[in-house]
Amino acid sequence: MKKLLLSLAVASFTLGCNATSETTKQPVTKTPVTNVIMIVADGMGPAFPTAYRYYADNPLTPNIEQTIFDKHLVGMSSTYPAQESGRVTDSAAGATALAAGVKTYNSAISVDVNKQPVETVLQRAKALGKKTGVVVTSQVNHATPAAYITHNESRKNYNAIADSYIDNGINVDVLLGGGWQYFIREDRNLVNEFKQAGFDYIDNFELLSQTNSHNKLLGLFADVGLPPALDNGGGKLLEMTKTALSHLENPNGFFMLVEASQVDWAAHSNDINSAMAEMHDLAQTLAYLESYVASNPNTQVVLTADHSTGGLTLAAKGEYRWSPEMLREMKTSTSAAAQALADSEITETSLSAALANITLENKDITNVIEAKEKALSKLQAYLQLTPEQQKKQRKPSVKYALYRALNSIIDHNTNTGWTTSGHTAVDVPVYAIGAQSAIFEGLIDNTDVAKGVFTLIEKN
Amino acid sequence: MKKLLLSLAVASFTLGCNATSETTKQPVTKTPVTNVIMIVADGMGPAFPTAYRYYADNPLTPNIEQTIFDKHLVGMSSTYPAQESGRVTDSAAGATALAAGVKTYNSAISVDVNKQPVETVLQRAKALGKKTGVVVTSQVNHATPAAYITHNESRKNYNAIADSYIDNGINVDVLLGGGWQYFIREDRNLVNEFKQAGFDYIDNFELLSQTNSHNKLLGLFADVGLPPALDNGGGKLLEMTKTALSHLENPNGFFMLVEASQVDWAAHSNDINSAMAEMHDLAQTLAYLESYVASNPNTQVVLTADHSTGGLTLAAKGEYRWSPEMLREMKTSTSAAAQALADSEITETSLSAALANITLENKDITNVIEAKEKALSKLQAYLQLTPEQQKKQRKPSVKYALYRALNSIIDHNTNTGWTTSGHTAVDVPVYAIGAQSAIFEGLIDNTDVAKGVFTLIEKN
Repeated sequence: MKKLLLSLAVASFTLGCNATSETTKQPVTKTPVTNVIMIVADGMGPAFPTAYRYYADNPLTPNIEQTIFDKHLVGMSSTYPAQESGRVTDSAAGATALAAGVKTYNSAISVDVNKQPVETVLQRAKALGKKTGVVVTSQVNHATPAAYITHNESRKNYNAIADSYIDNGINVDVLLGGGWQYFIREDRNLVNEFKQAGFDYIDNFELLSQTNSHNKLLGLFADVGLPPALDNGGGKLLEMTKTALSHLENPNGFFMLVEASQVDWAAHSNDINSAMAEMHDLAQTLAYLESYVASNPNTQVVLTADHSTGGLTLAAKGEYRWSPEMLREMKTSTSAAAQALADSEITETSLSAALANITLENKDITNVIEAKEKALSKLQAYLQLTPEQQKKQRKPSVKYALYRALNSIIDHNTNTGWTTSGHTAVDVPVYAIGAQSAIFEGLIDNTDVAKGVFTLIEKN
Repeated sequence: MKKLLLSLAVASFTLGCNATSETTKQPVTKTPVTNVIMIVADGMGPAFPTAYRYYADNPLTPNIEQTIFDKHLVGMSSTYPAQESGRVTDSAAGATALAAGVKTYNSAISVDVNKQPVETVLQRAKALGKKTGVVVTSQVNHATPAAYITHNESRKNYNAIADSYIDNGINVDVLLGGGWQYFIREDRNLVNEFKQAGFDYIDNFELLSQTNSHNKLLGLFADVGLPPALDNGGGKLLEMTKTALSHLENPNGFFMLVEASQVDWAAHSNDINSAMAEMHDLAQTLAYLESYVASNPNTQVVLTADHSTGGLTLAAKGEYRWSPEMLREMKTSTSAAAQALADSEITETSLSAALANITLENKDITNVIEAKEKALSKLQAYLQLTPEQQKKQRKPSVKYALYRALNSIIDHNTNTGWTTSGHTAVDVPVYAIGAQSAIFEGLIDNTDVAKGVFTLIEKN
């Protein structure tokens, strides 16, 4: 009801000063927004924050607690790409829309349908003298961060995208995430080039709290993406965000992109366990940024997804039930659990231990053992092939077969539904914290997110 | 960008009159809301309005047009029932939350978890001297309308619910929908009792435009639910709504429930064709009500769903595509098409004609013919059984088998995904039109919808 009271108060207030409304023509804000923090929750369709509410709920209280997302929902966003790519966007076209306000084809990195570069909010912020930062849990040259920083006709050109971070002129003051394999290559060492350009470089999470906030900072913490939240101790997105903020704060303001990259990766794998853990990492970060905006009211936060991944549904197969209980007890990622089972004998005990000690059905154990045996025999067959023959097919993965089998048990236990290993077209939720949140209210398009951010950046 | 400009204008205005803000303590509205129209889109999870946007899009223009839903989104609603029913609500508990602001167990009709009656917004409106109306496309004693009008410990007590509409004292001035089989029974004729209580009665859509708006009105147009929108000529929800409004308008104001009941039914059947047609019926109605509010600014409209049905996803099976094109060409419901194919020979021509003349794959034709043959032989086997044996199983339906086979082709063609024949827990969108729309902004709970409506009714 607080919403209700607030809105009635606003209505009353608005009417109370009707007479002056026409005299004030120019937008004025009490607290000018000098800092904009854009958060992209990659793949986070509407089912994810709903699921997180029930996952994060305190089972000891009778009520369902509101989440940090619930407190700040302002609307939803459509996500469709340029006409030629239909209605289902990929992360590249989605990020281009969010970063530059332009619809483009799937796989485009901030180029339009004619492959011409389009200016992004990060680039505009830099041009206007603001500091800029990028914090992601993927590699820093993955589609979303790339679409804010650079331009490329294809997201797949990972090395060229990384090269462009130097070659186009460095436009970030802080860059944190994964990506050693793209930045430290035989043909080029971009880390050294960043250092030569005056950047401090760290490659260990433990150094995050010890950086010199006066310096520019490159932090790469993994070969490709960071380990899943469940396996890295948790809170890495928050730690990186805090460090980045300390480097970015300055009188001219800053633009920062934060991406919870791996909600999407979990959902591509139809892995509800990691999806919820990545959501929790994001929730912690958002909660911190809520307090940051309270202390720094010149900061506007906006959070949305580029698209929904996996076709996640909270209930399936005719049963009116979604039961996240076991997920709260999972202490490692399902992927790590699969690796452990690939490396050891599968027994009722080892399997149950891998699955939060849930009570297993007999068929669960049979199915997992069979999945492993089948994968092992496929692997044996593969290893008999000539190198030429091997090149023509993917090497069978025992771990992956076990991962799928475990996910299937988790889905059955939680009654989670999925329809795809890819993306869907459903609108995604939009959240905002700060004095200018109203900009993002209602049903907006993903391009409107960029347009709103451009306006905020330009005005201050 | 209109949102952006509007919000900046509001920000500027608000600040311009900051000085007076603390002097106005009581809520005041320029236009008091005397009429509240509550629309329940049964089963309409977030994927449905997104799907409708692409379904309704004008293919002759390069841009994707906003829908009437898009224009009025204000937030989302959580839908979980009382703790004992988990996180996935049914329509009864969902409607009780929306109607009375109380969480209850699944199948409860405006009784709490102790089976005690809880007052509904319709009942409060009536008690406060307003007129009340109910317009649905289900039977008028189905879960949603029942939860606004009456109380019962189970939605399944259809006859008792219908009886209570008389026995508890008639509290509606207009009641339109289906339900002959519950209202005209061997043991009791409720239609006659409504007539004796002074109601006009109509049982034919054509009479909707000729009713005497000074009289109370009962209109029942079908044995159970109305025919699907695709088979009834379309626009019936709108026609009933217009007629109801003409009967409800009065100086004391009114409360009206409008339910697009069959979005849910289509989704239970995983029938994207009918789901989109029911959404179109709802969109027409909402567009009319938008203009109604413009002419009658003392009216507040709020629209939400009680839950999401079917686990609908817009793309499936790894393919980045959702293609509603064929749906726009479907002129009958898939159910009616299945009946036609049950009654005639299946050929490539007849099957293609049933499916908007799409190009069929060979396996489509084979599958449909096989589905029919299998159902026919099951039916033959059933007919050989003794009456005692027949009682123990459901009579095989050739039409239903064909319906499933056709839906499967449509899903493949449109790349639509479903995960369940039941409901899911995902939050649902909330729309509002009128001076008090801000009450429903952000993430609210389904019980907050009722609380907001109670406040509006009580204030005026």
